[in-house]
Amino acid sequence: MNSHSNLRGVFFDEEAFQALESLFSKKSYSKVILLCDANTHEHCLPPFLANAPFIGDSNLEILELEPGEETKSIEILAQVWDAFGALEMDRKSILINIGGGVITDLGGFAAATYMRGIDFVNFPSSLLAMVDASVGSKTGINFGGFKNRIGLFSDPQLVGIIPDFLKTLAPEELKSGWAEMLKHGLIADDAHFQELVNRAYKAEAFDAGIIKRSISIKAAVVNQDKYEGGLRKILNFGHTIGHALESYYHQAGQPISHGYAVGLGMIVELGLSVDYADLDAAKASAIQLQLRSEFSFPPLKIEKETFLNLVIGDKKNSAGQLQFSLLADAGKAVFDKQIALESIWPYMEREGL
Amino acid sequence: MNSHSNLRGVFFDEEAFQALESLFSKKSYSKVILLCDANTHEHCLPPFLANAPFIGDSNLEILELEPGEETKSIEILAQVWDAFGALEMDRKSILINIGGGVITDLGGFAAATYMRGIDFVNFPSSLLAMVDASVGSKTGINFGGFKNRIGLFSDPQLVGIIPDFLKTLAPEELKSGWAEMLKHGLIADDAHFQELVNRAYKAEAFDAGIIKRSISIKAAVVNQDKYEGGLRKILNFGHTIGHALESYYHQAGQPISHGYAVGLGMIVELGLSVDYADLDAAKASAIQLQLRSEFSFPPLKIEKETFLNLVIGDKKNSAGQLQFSLLADAGKAVFDKQIALESIWPYMEREGL
Repeated sequence: MNSHSNLRGVFFDEEAFQALESLFSKKSYSKVILLCDANTHEHCLPPFLANAPFIGDSNLEILELEPGEETKSIEILAQVWDAFGALEMDRKSILINIGGGVITDLGGFAAATYMRGIDFVNFPSSLLAMVDASVGSKTGINFGGFKNRIGLFSDPQLVGIIPDFLKTLAPEELKSGWAEMLKHGLIADDAHFQELVNRAYKAEAFDAGIIKRSISIKAAVVNQDKYEGGLRKILNFGHTIGHALESYYHQAGQPISHGYAVGLGMIVELGLSVDYADLDAAKASAIQLQLRSEFSFPPLKIEKETFLNLVIGDKKNSAGQLQFSLLADAGKAVFDKQIALESIWPYMEREGL
Repeated sequence: MNSHSNLRGVFFDEEAFQALESLFSKKSYSKVILLCDANTHEHCLPPFLANAPFIGDSNLEILELEPGEETKSIEILAQVWDAFGALEMDRKSILINIGGGVITDLGGFAAATYMRGIDFVNFPSSLLAMVDASVGSKTGINFGGFKNRIGLFSDPQLVGIIPDFLKTLAPEELKSGWAEMLKHGLIADDAHFQELVNRAYKAEAFDAGIIKRSISIKAAVVNQDKYEGGLRKILNFGHTIGHALESYYHQAGQPISHGYAVGLGMIVELGLSVDYADLDAAKASAIQLQLRSEFSFPPLKIEKETFLNLVIGDKKNSAGQLQFSLLADAGKAVFDKQIALESIWPYMEREGL
């Protein structure tokens, strides 16, 4: 089933469990820790464990964290490191992350830095984690008010994708992943974008086929530029504005999901794309219209100064200069578009912010 | 002068500044942060900056930490990450670590995880950091009472060794580095060991030549096995007992230096080497005698249970089994010698502990 040859290490459904079993028989781990949150503990662990009898009970421990972005903090990271020690994990132990991006990012970082790195695998439970965090090797935590400020590149031994996990997700959580999939289409594959806008984002709509297609777009980019020296930056389309919006609404006590913020970020950056990347204005308007029907800005006046400070703090920006990834066409992105901080505000105002 | 071809990235004296200058002209860093402690701020920064006029003042900031092992903590790490943010370091910034192992380990880890990794260089100021931390790519902090429990492998852009930095070191600090040099001799080069015991460990005795020879031994080992899958473990000779002693005396409020602890650890592990690695008993006694004249156990009764718990917590041990690196001969080490925890105690008692 794994026909997309660029998806090395990513397995779907029964193949994921087969790959995990062969990893386990090769490595004979001293200890197996399952990291989850309350939601995945309830909904994903039972089917996961039923399909992975080879893990056995004797060395298995379960660590459960609070769901939510707040968990991706240095305090919780320290608690996880503490728990690893208390559970006597050693260099031959493995961590299995079952959860959304919070669990896979934090768990991956904890594993990559415990005793200078132990094995870990990811079984993403949200659509966002499946299509976004599943490839690219990024791990980390939020710090000092900034998303993913602390982290590193570290590869899981494998990623297992079980689309059935999506069935218990709330619609707004599906929308978060859907936004990143739309982004994959917009930056590299217009047909994928059209296919997505024509589907309702119900769990059943996200089968292994369409998930695989979306991941393959990301994997093709990442494989060419793992450390984000160049091309990989196109994956940041919608994110410079999106991250700042996410931080802004979070600080204002009206949090929105990462994907939803990216959806809004893409709307603003489509406007920028017309003026800074020669995107056809009519095309931009048509795409913005499609996006606005699904992603609407919360009814909250955005304070300019605060917002621009959040934008400038983004780690993609160097020496005070903003670096945008924008669209030159539907299905074609460009990167390293330099824009002065002040110049972006009118594009925000155009959205009534 | 860099005649040892395996010392890639390690430069001495004026060549170190030349290498740094060429790095700076290649990269044009947005911001330069110098991480030091109060001692290196006073003694090493002035000569360093005098030799590195190309850094300039405009982008330079200095971060000073408290000297001492306590600094290698998650709390200080978080403060350093905070400072990076406050100083507006971005992905094109560089961290220059000037200090002992505490500064290079913590600074390296902070840089390797800030925004998923920024450039850093190390200018070690202690003999221990020069001969030990300068090669091998290990970075990290202490955690949960264990040395280097959290960390990762990350390469500095370059290591600059300035033997003149040693002139302000206290004799006991020199001894700490000297112990690791002795270890390099014992595990791989008996002539180096003999050369070292015949020199007094005064700063003048440690010139670029002998430092380079000692580092070359370590580099030869590390280059063959960077991630410690096999051969690299021989560098742990003296360390299984040594680390536990270091933690024990630290917790007892009578801290000893890392190198000193390794010196003591080697004495005990020489006894183990006779019974578990076929080291000639007379040879072991002769070496122990040489070591005992320089490294004596503090007058403190060691509580067996507490000590053995510290030994078993060492990250080199897997599933409760102790893994020792021992000597088969003077100048020849072996690794993965399994010894049951209880069996080591008589070798401690033999030293009157």
